[in-house]
Amino acid sequence: VDEFATIARLFEPLARGEPGALGLTDDAAVLAVASGRRLVVTTDVIVEGVHYLADDPAPLVARKLVRANLSDLAAMGARPRHYLVGLALRSPVSEPWLEGFAEGLAADQAAYGIVLVGGDTTAHDGPTVLALTALGEVEEGRELRRGGARDGDRIWVSGTIGDGILGLRALRGALGHLDPDHRAYLADRYRLPRPRVELGPRLVGLAHAAIDVSDGLIADLGHVCATSGLGAVVAVDRVPLSAAAREAVSADSSLRDAILSGGDDYELLFTAPRKADEALRALSSALDLPLTPIGAMTRDPALVLEEPDGTRRPAPRRGGWTHF
Amino acid sequence: VDEFATIARLFEPLARGEPGALGLTDDAAVLAVASGRRLVVTTDVIVEGVHYLADDPAPLVARKLVRANLSDLAAMGARPRHYLVGLALRSPVSEPWLEGFAEGLAADQAAYGIVLVGGDTTAHDGPTVLALTALGEVEEGRELRRGGARDGDRIWVSGTIGDGILGLRALRGALGHLDPDHRAYLADRYRLPRPRVELGPRLVGLAHAAIDVSDGLIADLGHVCATSGLGAVVAVDRVPLSAAAREAVSADSSLRDAILSGGDDYELLFTAPRKADEALRALSSALDLPLTPIGAMTRDPALVLEEPDGTRRPAPRRGGWTHF
Repeated sequence: VDEFATIARLFEPLARGEPGALGLTDDAAVLAVASGRRLVVTTDVIVEGVHYLADDPAPLVARKLVRANLSDLAAMGARPRHYLVGLALRSPVSEPWLEGFAEGLAADQAAYGIVLVGGDTTAHDGPTVLALTALGEVEEGRELRRGGARDGDRIWVSGTIGDGILGLRALRGALGHLDPDHRAYLADRYRLPRPRVELGPRLVGLAHAAIDVSDGLIADLGHVCATSGLGAVVAVDRVPLSAAAREAVSADSSLRDAILSGGDDYELLFTAPRKADEALRALSSALDLPLTPIGAMTRDPALVLEEPDGTRRPAPRRGGWTHF
Repeated sequence: VDEFATIARLFEPLARGEPGALGLTDDAAVLAVASGRRLVVTTDVIVEGVHYLADDPAPLVARKLVRANLSDLAAMGARPRHYLVGLALRSPVSEPWLEGFAEGLAADQAAYGIVLVGGDTTAHDGPTVLALTALGEVEEGRELRRGGARDGDRIWVSGTIGDGILGLRALRGALGHLDPDHRAYLADRYRLPRPRVELGPRLVGLAHAAIDVSDGLIADLGHVCATSGLGAVVAVDRVPLSAAAREAVSADSSLRDAILSGGDDYELLFTAPRKADEALRALSSALDLPLTPIGAMTRDPALVLEEPDGTRRPAPRRGGWTHF
């Protein structure tokens, strides 16, 4: 197998939608950023055996990597446009795996209107390492940040929370008592997140702060609190759960904390003033995507969970830190 | 060791020169691209044990990674501005190594006026993999490309050719007969390339095509030929050599082909019409950097080497392919 010819064959077609990719034949891509817009850029690295398993379907590995990055762009209010990949592949390179990986990239290029504009590939004796850099655009001065929350802001989340961690557990063989459809739903949510690429840009002008829920609801809300210099109270029973997650929690109430701490949801968490309530409900309806208020930002810098009976406790602290 | 605290401590200071990096605390960086300019973006991946050795000094590993990417930007005529890193570090993470790596990044930030704007870090049981994405700017419509060469253009190279491959061989214990200063010179050239970041942007308007010599003179000129739909004749004795390379070749003439095929020089190869001769000589003088004509582009698509006695032979073909 001439692996370099394989790579050229698989990846060059992914660059055809952007003339500035120069067919991936040049030293770099040359891209326009429209006047009045800012470039938004983020990068992620995932490793075989750490972030995914060697026998995970390669198209899903590619799509999850793409989607994790698009989720970061969405959290800034940016629209995704381009991406680059850096691949350190386990030697000998598996051609079927690489074909599956490229197939996954192609599927998400179509789903999200993005184009590959560059990359680098090498092989080595060790686990495959996949790096992706995503580029997007946001109107100048309109980007959403973690640090913009204000005292009294409502805290909102999109979609449902906890499906990521429950899906991972289901894939590892736990939650065997669940309805098989629910287990499959959770596994799918873990393996193929839905980054809120439409929601993020629509939050510009409504939200004061935003972040994507990738490290876990508590950790990510904690990032918003820390960068905004505020605290938060979250009403635990208002955190929106899928039917599958509700079934899991009703069978094992200890999963409630796992849901609040687990990662990989790729929903957006954002804060907004109460005067945005109506616009946010209209947006939820327009996007056919649940947007749920779960608490409020507070001047007291603690991150507090409030139970249905009114009792409050500090949110559990969790290690973990992905960006730097 | 709290490795994540270490990473935050080491990398956050590198982002201080760019407000749009948001202190590396947000989901993505938000960067301005000036009106009338284009974003130029490239990425490279290097692996411990493949592209560098575990006991290579970490600052040099960092600087070579930075410089290889800056060389790609220079080849497009772009000025470097920002970069992101994705690190999959061998577990357990060596804090001294990471400190050295950050120190190398800091040194080259100062040398080239670039700023870190994002990154991601993870640890795993396997060789360290380092990905870097570099962002630069070029005036709209003024970027240099590989495919712009014209029949009859002179072929020029900056600096000297072959020091990269000879330096690698010296580091591996070969070339023991050389003057120790020459061996040290070659080793340094291999370990710490000098990307031609000042030259690249100054070639805009003078050169028809450009590439950096990273895969080797013949391979990279071959890329220019292939994308331009032309061939080339190179006068072998005009290829500029350092004093150290001349000493090596005079002791072992078989090294001449290694010099033409070896990589890691990070010089620029470019083609220009003869009417640019005078401007290029003035530029060489202004930058205090040798610029040497070594041949000409031809309508005949072959890549031909011409010996001093006038005999011609096809350039040896070599495997290898880094970008896709």
